[in-house]
Amino acid sequence: MMPAMKTPIAIALHGGAGVLTRAKIDNSAEREYRTALQAALDLGWEMLCAGGSSLDAVEAVTRNLEDCPLFNAGRGSVYTSAGTHEMDASIMCGRKGQAGAVAAVSRIRNPVSLARLVMEQSGAVLLCGEGAEAFARECGIVPTASRYFHTDARREQLETARRMGRVSVDHDEMQEKYGTVGAAALDAAGNLAAATSTGGMTNKRPGRIGDSPVPGAGTFADNTTCAVSCTGEGEAFLRCCAAHEVSARMRHGGADLATAAEMVIHTVLPGKGGLVAVDRSGAVALPFNTEGMFRAWRSSSGTDGVAIYGEA
Amino acid sequence: MMPAMKTPIAIALHGGAGVLTRAKIDNSAEREYRTALQAALDLGWEMLCAGGSSLDAVEAVTRNLEDCPLFNAGRGSVYTSAGTHEMDASIMCGRKGQAGAVAAVSRIRNPVSLARLVMEQSGAVLLCGEGAEAFARECGIVPTASRYFHTDARREQLETARRMGRVSVDHDEMQEKYGTVGAAALDAAGNLAAATSTGGMTNKRPGRIGDSPVPGAGTFADNTTCAVSCTGEGEAFLRCCAAHEVSARMRHGGADLATAAEMVIHTVLPGKGGLVAVDRSGAVALPFNTEGMFRAWRSSSGTDGVAIYGEA
Repeated sequence: MMPAMKTPIAIALHGGAGVLTRAKIDNSAEREYRTALQAALDLGWEMLCAGGSSLDAVEAVTRNLEDCPLFNAGRGSVYTSAGTHEMDASIMCGRKGQAGAVAAVSRIRNPVSLARLVMEQSGAVLLCGEGAEAFARECGIVPTASRYFHTDARREQLETARRMGRVSVDHDEMQEKYGTVGAAALDAAGNLAAATSTGGMTNKRPGRIGDSPVPGAGTFADNTTCAVSCTGEGEAFLRCCAAHEVSARMRHGGADLATAAEMVIHTVLPGKGGLVAVDRSGAVALPFNTEGMFRAWRSSSGTDGVAIYGEA
Repeated sequence: MMPAMKTPIAIALHGGAGVLTRAKIDNSAEREYRTALQAALDLGWEMLCAGGSSLDAVEAVTRNLEDCPLFNAGRGSVYTSAGTHEMDASIMCGRKGQAGAVAAVSRIRNPVSLARLVMEQSGAVLLCGEGAEAFARECGIVPTASRYFHTDARREQLETARRMGRVSVDHDEMQEKYGTVGAAALDAAGNLAAATSTGGMTNKRPGRIGDSPVPGAGTFADNTTCAVSCTGEGEAFLRCCAAHEVSARMRHGGADLATAAEMVIHTVLPGKGGLVAVDRSGAVALPFNTEGMFRAWRSSSGTDGVAIYGEA
């Protein structure tokens, strides 16, 4: 049911990458994840088909995934070592290269929407902690009680991580999963946009900021090249400016989207993770170097899918 | 007095860019700035000549500038709108692409040294606020009383900025200056490193994070290309990943350091500022699109200088 369009549209989204194999996810959990990914995809696609902007679409898709307790962002955020929640998010518009982001916010139901307000109304690009929450109140956002972010499953992950004295597991100690969510999209006006949101890593040190709220690291969009949202070991993405590196390989190196995205994930990135990206022609790339990545994509070129595990 | 060396060494440092003209800086202030820049340059150069690492040199130079009340970093940091100090810093080593950074710290005398501890001991790349200060205490760093950061001149700037209802002036309302400090260096082992530190913008919103603590935006180092430290409108550098963009133009576009650095400052950057950079051959670049930039540089190739104003 692809609409006849003069100009391409496309969207790709993710719900985190990690040790995702058929042996580790039972059928009923798999169905839940697939249903959630499909719903987020349909939401974004319908907005793009109706002539909506890629910026609105990636915000709406990311909000939708934030509201879903299955994913480590918004509602389903993991716990820090202090038993608190600290969420990071960013959004970027490829038309003018504007960006907005928030880091280490604790009482914001939809961090990605606060990131958009930072972009459009604060004069800043990145606000953190109490300052970000004060800005939210100025914008009329009512703080969310911390119990909204409580889920028994995440609390159990924290207890497990504490017992093992480690950081970074999302699901359980046998199943490392980097549970960021995000989306990249191309709209009919030719504008690219990307957004990313995360609860970070279970048992992380309070104040730790990963790549998700950093333009160029976890999120990047530039109308001349691509829009990118990343997920994985945040420190690795920060060190190599992963999202910007995909764009730079296209802009300066003449690479196509698939080659640029795959090179960054498989040869440049000094760690584990994946990304979703779309380019101005509507091409989609979804490389990862983990066992799997929760992902969904659709393009007016005809490609369409929801997937969790690796190919083959 | 250049030592005979088989391998090149080089260092470049800055103390901020902005509306710096001869008409705005009197002779005695100019002498003070030049003396401070020269002392920082000599300190870093001597370390490199003695076989010290570029990482140690950029940290020492940046600490030296943090300790000097003339510059907006460490001791001389400007005030936020809340009348507090919030400092950001980062450091990056080009050998392995490791990076460390702190954002929105208030009681740390030398944020660049805390950034290095984050890089080497925390497992994270970027720590902010209370979490960063808690990590500092774990490392045995004694919190510094806020009066250490008080200077009458900065307080007057805050009062002026508040009266005018604006952010971002450093010196006074007639003289916009982005008072970040930083350095980039190449050592005799062929390793590149960069560091940046800032008090941010006078009257800034608490929690606002600029480019200085962000790898790829305000600081970047990669042994295959260059080391870069930026100063200017932080939001502009964040949006275009300015420091990483210099490296990407060399790596993927085949540009030399001077061309890459000038293109980023004069055509890519959506705002005001400058940067200092060195490459693996010992070449130095110091472009800025403001009236002036406090800067100093020396290379075993023979170039050497301290300057404030624009050329010509």
